[in-house]
Amino acid sequence: MDEIHELSELESWEVLGRNELGRLGFHLLDEVHIVPVNYAGDGRTLLFRTAEGSKLLGVLLNGNVAFEVEELDAEVARTVVVRGVARQLGEAEAHRAERVPLHSWVPGDRCEVVEIRPTVVTGRELPLARPWTRMRA
Amino acid sequence: MDEIHELSELESWEVLGRNELGRLGFHLLDEVHIVPVNYAGDGRTLLFRTAEGSKLLGVLLNGNVAFEVEELDAEVARTVVVRGVARQLGEAEAHRAERVPLHSWVPGDRCEVVEIRPTVVTGRELPLARPWTRMRA
Repeated sequence: MDEIHELSELESWEVLGRNELGRLGFHLLDEVHIVPVNYAGDGRTLLFRTAEGSKLLGVLLNGNVAFEVEELDAEVARTVVVRGVARQLGEAEAHRAERVPLHSWVPGDRCEVVEIRPTVVTGRELPLARPWTRMRA
Repeated sequence: MDEIHELSELESWEVLGRNELGRLGFHLLDEVHIVPVNYAGDGRTLLFRTAEGSKLLGVLLNGNVAFEVEELDAEVARTVVVRGVARQLGEAEAHRAERVPLHSWVPGDRCEVVEIRPTVVTGRELPLARPWTRMRA
């Protein structure tokens, strides 16, 4: 298995469904920002919690975002990139975050719920030339 | 240690220096993209290799990028975010990539060398509410 292999959309969603740490890429004015976030899938959307701050501001100003999840096994890496539209959920919808396994790895109050509705989901499985267990992950 | 702790710029560079996988956030026209890349530090710059493609095109069109590295220990996560300017190195400079430990985890030809010259380097150390070893990384 020396080839890079495109994941199907279903396989990509499976990767999204079994992980809980990803990175959000968003615009803030004319800058690109990246932040790691804990997320959970909710149907064919992704949810995460955030506090007020630049992440929320960026999403409110421009909902066009990217989201990336990596999964490293001993011999392959899978990387899934979502492009989609993010929006803050209002009171009538924020309860959706209660029904999914949305766990923050770090303490802190994050009261706002943001939904990413993917427009494009792509994934790749790549053979690792060097096993990742030999290095820091 | 229940507090989020800001890393100094020196501590942030130490995190950058001992890791080799990060994520590049870049503009491609009006979209935000994220891709994982293997990188190495070269002085106070970061270098990575790439093939021709959207990553290189995005950087050539708009060099304002973000770059993010995570480091997970048993009880803390460290995340370093660089904002900076990326540019493709020409023949006269591309040899810099030969002098640094720039290893690609995945096979494939990547002939172009890109330098990120950071303008802002920020890092945070966050206590993990749940040890990451209990979950997929």
